[in-house]
Amino acid sequence: MPDRSKPFVEGISIGHFRIARLAFSFRSDPIEERNMLTFYFAPGSCALASLIALEESGLAYEPRRLNLANGDQRQPEYLAVNPKGRVPALVTDKGLITENVAILAYLAQIVPAAKLAPLDDPFAFAQMQAFNSYLSSTVHINHSHKGRGYRWTDDAAAIETMKAKVPQTMTESFALIEDGMLKGPWVMGDQYTVADGYLFTIAKWLPGDGVDRDQFAKVSAHYARMLERPAVKKALAVEAG
Amino acid sequence: MPDRSKPFVEGISIGHFRIARLAFSFRSDPIEERNMLTFYFAPGSCALASLIALEESGLAYEPRRLNLANGDQRQPEYLAVNPKGRVPALVTDKGLITENVAILAYLAQIVPAAKLAPLDDPFAFAQMQAFNSYLSSTVHINHSHKGRGYRWTDDAAAIETMKAKVPQTMTESFALIEDGMLKGPWVMGDQYTVADGYLFTIAKWLPGDGVDRDQFAKVSAHYARMLERPAVKKALAVEAG
Repeated sequence: MPDRSKPFVEGISIGHFRIARLAFSFRSDPIEERNMLTFYFAPGSCALASLIALEESGLAYEPRRLNLANGDQRQPEYLAVNPKGRVPALVTDKGLITENVAILAYLAQIVPAAKLAPLDDPFAFAQMQAFNSYLSSTVHINHSHKGRGYRWTDDAAAIETMKAKVPQTMTESFALIEDGMLKGPWVMGDQYTVADGYLFTIAKWLPGDGVDRDQFAKVSAHYARMLERPAVKKALAVEAG
Repeated sequence: MPDRSKPFVEGISIGHFRIARLAFSFRSDPIEERNMLTFYFAPGSCALASLIALEESGLAYEPRRLNLANGDQRQPEYLAVNPKGRVPALVTDKGLITENVAILAYLAQIVPAAKLAPLDDPFAFAQMQAFNSYLSSTVHINHSHKGRGYRWTDDAAAIETMKAKVPQTMTESFALIEDGMLKGPWVMGDQYTVADGYLFTIAKWLPGDGVDRDQFAKVSAHYARMLERPAVKKALAVEAG
């Protein structure tokens, strides 16, 4: 395990990569040899979805924790890595990948043996991507109106009215998931995919959003099932630090 | 060209599919033979991105126009197709695909000869998906606070404050695109991809969002370049009806 107490900017130094490459030079997995991964995340954020996928993939990676409350994501050192100033961000030997929807599919593609996506079936892959995109562009956005309302208004009173509606919008989104999108036992049916870690990540927010997760029987069972997976336990431990 | 004056619900009837299959039984393209596509869109919406990709792909499809102002998307007939009540929605022989991010990648995958995505390079594919996901979950969302503020608040005054911030948030998003994400001449560089139609679709909204597109030289040049493509002209004609 890398030393996560180091400042995150060290993770992108040339020296760091040189040492990392040497350290992996005797490994048998050609992907790991070629691809040193550095993963930027923040506890409590949606980056947990990609963190779970990293753990499920079995790939080696260096986790780098940002403290959003301290504004780490707006520091010049981090903006040099990811100009968006958001997490997650995955730095590969070829460059940066942002956005859960992209990182999740990428991890599934570079480790096909982990069977994290229906890679050989464009329709099923598209359904998985549609699920992930719904989480990203609708459900996460609903949630963001609780704590990030300042993104879309400068008015303090308006921000309060946004917060008030979050339980309703999150309930409506999870009703759609419960009533059709979540096939069960996993999101895509019998096969676990990266979509499961993403659903788990957002379902984890429900109590904080004022929504009783237990009202959604399938979502709740999925959540409990996820907590039993070794990779999820590991990802939660990495997140906790 | 199908008769688009027919009510859209006819597009999902069993009879329709039977006739469509017969109609395609003499075509040489095996994908088209197997896959009758029906595409639900609304003029002025983000569905234009997928409409452009459909035209670029060369696939046959049946366009079905919804009038969002009339509430077509909330009618039981449409909710039976897409319970989300949104566009775009692509109905294939295997079932429904929603979300631009998923539909765009799907079309690129099923027509590899059209070269609409870097299918053989997981990193480049992930960068394209990250771009599309940014448009979907950040830029489109910024735009939505102009006309869809009611999704996130019930307060009329709050909705007005949201509208007021749209020029700022859209400008900030397009500054990021201009300064780094748009490689030029196309989004991904020398190769046109489905991301280009998506960028064009959202850049089309800028004047209505109170943002001068001309301040972004690369985005403006990209927009003009897109208008010259036959598939874009065709998609705009289909949208116009």
